[in-house]
Amino acid sequence: MAEAEIGVIGLAVMGANLALNIADNGYHVAVYNRTASRTDAFAASAGALSDRVTACATLEDFVAAIRPPRPVIIMVKAGEPVDQQIAALKPLLDANDIIIDAGNANFRDTMRRFTDLEGSGLTFIGMGVSGGEEGARHGPSIMVGGAEEAWRRVEPVLTAISAKYQGEPCAAWLGENGAGHFVKTIHNGIEYADMQMIAEVYGVMRDHLSMDAASIASVFSAWSKGPLDSYLIDITAEVLKVEDAASGRPIVDIIVDAAGQKGTGRWSVIESQMMGVPATAIEAAVAARSLSAMREQRATAEARFGIPAAQDRRDAQQVIGDLEKALLAGKVAAYAQGFAVMAAASQEFGWNLPMATIARIWRAGCIIRSTFLDEIATAFNENPDVPNLALTPAFSKIIEETDQSLRRVVADAALNGLPVPALASALGYFDTYRRARGTANLIQAQRDFFGAHGFARLDAEGEHHGPWGG
Amino acid sequence: MAEAEIGVIGLAVMGANLALNIADNGYHVAVYNRTASRTDAFAASAGALSDRVTACATLEDFVAAIRPPRPVIIMVKAGEPVDQQIAALKPLLDANDIIIDAGNANFRDTMRRFTDLEGSGLTFIGMGVSGGEEGARHGPSIMVGGAEEAWRRVEPVLTAISAKYQGEPCAAWLGENGAGHFVKTIHNGIEYADMQMIAEVYGVMRDHLSMDAASIASVFSAWSKGPLDSYLIDITAEVLKVEDAASGRPIVDIIVDAAGQKGTGRWSVIESQMMGVPATAIEAAVAARSLSAMREQRATAEARFGIPAAQDRRDAQQVIGDLEKALLAGKVAAYAQGFAVMAAASQEFGWNLPMATIARIWRAGCIIRSTFLDEIATAFNENPDVPNLALTPAFSKIIEETDQSLRRVVADAALNGLPVPALASALGYFDTYRRARGTANLIQAQRDFFGAHGFARLDAEGEHHGPWGG
Repeated sequence: MAEAEIGVIGLAVMGANLALNIADNGYHVAVYNRTASRTDAFAASAGALSDRVTACATLEDFVAAIRPPRPVIIMVKAGEPVDQQIAALKPLLDANDIIIDAGNANFRDTMRRFTDLEGSGLTFIGMGVSGGEEGARHGPSIMVGGAEEAWRRVEPVLTAISAKYQGEPCAAWLGENGAGHFVKTIHNGIEYADMQMIAEVYGVMRDHLSMDAASIASVFSAWSKGPLDSYLIDITAEVLKVEDAASGRPIVDIIVDAAGQKGTGRWSVIESQMMGVPATAIEAAVAARSLSAMREQRATAEARFGIPAAQDRRDAQQVIGDLEKALLAGKVAAYAQGFAVMAAASQEFGWNLPMATIARIWRAGCIIRSTFLDEIATAFNENPDVPNLALTPAFSKIIEETDQSLRRVVADAALNGLPVPALASALGYFDTYRRARGTANLIQAQRDFFGAHGFARLDAEGEHHGPWGG
Repeated sequence: MAEAEIGVIGLAVMGANLALNIADNGYHVAVYNRTASRTDAFAASAGALSDRVTACATLEDFVAAIRPPRPVIIMVKAGEPVDQQIAALKPLLDANDIIIDAGNANFRDTMRRFTDLEGSGLTFIGMGVSGGEEGARHGPSIMVGGAEEAWRRVEPVLTAISAKYQGEPCAAWLGENGAGHFVKTIHNGIEYADMQMIAEVYGVMRDHLSMDAASIASVFSAWSKGPLDSYLIDITAEVLKVEDAASGRPIVDIIVDAAGQKGTGRWSVIESQMMGVPATAIEAAVAARSLSAMREQRATAEARFGIPAAQDRRDAQQVIGDLEKALLAGKVAAYAQGFAVMAAASQEFGWNLPMATIARIWRAGCIIRSTFLDEIATAFNENPDVPNLALTPAFSKIIEETDQSLRRVVADAALNGLPVPALASALGYFDTYRRARGTANLIQAQRDFFGAHGFARLDAEGEHHGPWGG
């Protein structure tokens, strides 16, 4: 009876595609969904893969269909539904069965679930999956957190279903307990920054260079053959080309400019704040999405202030050349920040996160996949302990080559009223980071003046106070 | 025996000064400190106020010395020590006694303490106090959260000891439970932004205009007579003038450029993220402090990249004129963001925060006190429901008058490698906010392409998906 090697609970598009992907790779999979009609629909759609799918009407049947020790993937909405699903499963499972939460969990929930399941005999894995619908179906990037021994047991199936980069699977064990979901959160934070910076250069082309969607698409297409080569640049070119059937206009021109967000961006910011690691590019991206949602206020503000008058415009081809390099510079800042946040978390939570491996499993399958990540993997391989990606030889070189372009883009945008908050944050980050002598000496003087917080001296040890009088 | 009208626990500088302030205002105060030697030292230093101070060696004596119902102010290190102090006090107090936590508590801890004390018969107040040592001694700004009835009982003493702005006390009840500590947190977040933007314009004068500390002090002195008139500008001029006795150099030039932070800045950011309200100026300020602490990395980075070569420099007086206006523009952004965060929290926690009152009690006593806050109070009085300070007539006018200067400062800084991350974030905020048509339409297209997240159309109701093919 029990012929399935693995089970999947939750048959919305991500779960369904993951189950098909598993079957496609020769594994027998049991599936279950709380709403039975969805299970039936899935079974009906499995086609040629049907003989490797056991669709179950009840959770009891589902558990019975899987050979112990059972790996059970839960792919339901993050939060409360995961806890409910675990509670429902727990009495039905046996010792050594593995519950794998593959949703977009907040890693702090994942940490709690590890604690909750301690002593239950069950094994838990928190697994980040990136790649959207397509990735889930044909190969996502898979970030695993939990006991290494648990990973070993599911490694064959997870590497089989994962994306491959030049033959290497994009699935890896990253560390104990919450490591996988933490890394997935930062992946998404970086994704926010990547997307925001793309939207900013799109805005410069649309609103400053007055280019139409098709022309902007051509620029992105060209960039996708250079150092910006990535999935997000590819799909940007793609969506900009698409025409809306109803209006005959480029579809981007009829889409409302209010972006949604589901939490991983703000989680990235909150965690980076808790560890005191700057993640300004992600912060700028989250803020931009929040402002995008305030459409009414923005309309009021434009009516009140107008759009700033355009200044002298530089040659369009020069501007476009600068935009490409600025985007590359911005990427370096965003990834440097994201990896620095992960390094701090690795220390804080004792994960020993493998930075080069993380970059490697992001090279294919996930939303931020790119050749750029291959360079990051190489950089971390060569310099595993570098405190900041920007200081590796390869990325130092990129910064030097793109620095002036980023400056011109930010300056032009400032003078012309074009919002480029994420690119500007990248520049502010670099320019603060590359000054041996900053300006926080003034802040320390102020803090000591009003709060007696004390300061260090350049020429003596210990804590000092100013002779402020008063 | 019990002749004290109020008690103060914790005699470090803030608590000691608060106790002296209370005695100075004619109230009899009982004091206690866990380390008895500090209590003795305090008693010895009370001088002419000694007859209104009862210094107690034990917590039992302290409680016995206060007339019931007892108001007891706790001014100890935020966090665990507050819980310990409450636990120690609880068995000694009687019904209707009031415990007032006057430290820099995280408002979520304050919320928890309200819940913990429910049904105990004791009353709790979470009270934010700003003004540093001087303020505590001679009149701080006092932000009270708790039951309105509890506030009425301590209102006479709290208004007596508070700062006065043209005779009006800078103390007020702001709402239930955590309201006072929340508002204090945002006060501090704004303070971070204010200080960072001052440090940025200082950096432009020092590193771009090659001005010495004394010359920069003169500029801040001049600004303190204009629209920037504020405590922080005053003390900036002050500290820049001070000479270090040991070296004979301006003291700011021998202070290490690594700023400390105690948590309220990052709490502001975390709470604003949780509510989805952009607070980019505070984010930039917190990031700048974190980067300032990475001195070794910054030295490595400067050695690696050098300081960007200076471009053509505009006339110094023009630059200084622009810096003054840019600082004013930056302040508008920081305060608009801070008040927007408070408005969202007011909704979320049901506080009904009185915005005009908050601005009023910040006009004197606290670290961010300024004439600017008087204008904010007026603006909120006239437009209590305005969604953003920037849309009030008075502040719209400031934005229009300072807009071009902020643009030039950010553009100059970008081209010359001068870090102005907070000022740049202010500009990015305004420029995103004042566009009726932003660029998030592209982000929505991308999200629908890879994750089927759906988008809204400008020309139709409902959720739509693109014909992406693929």
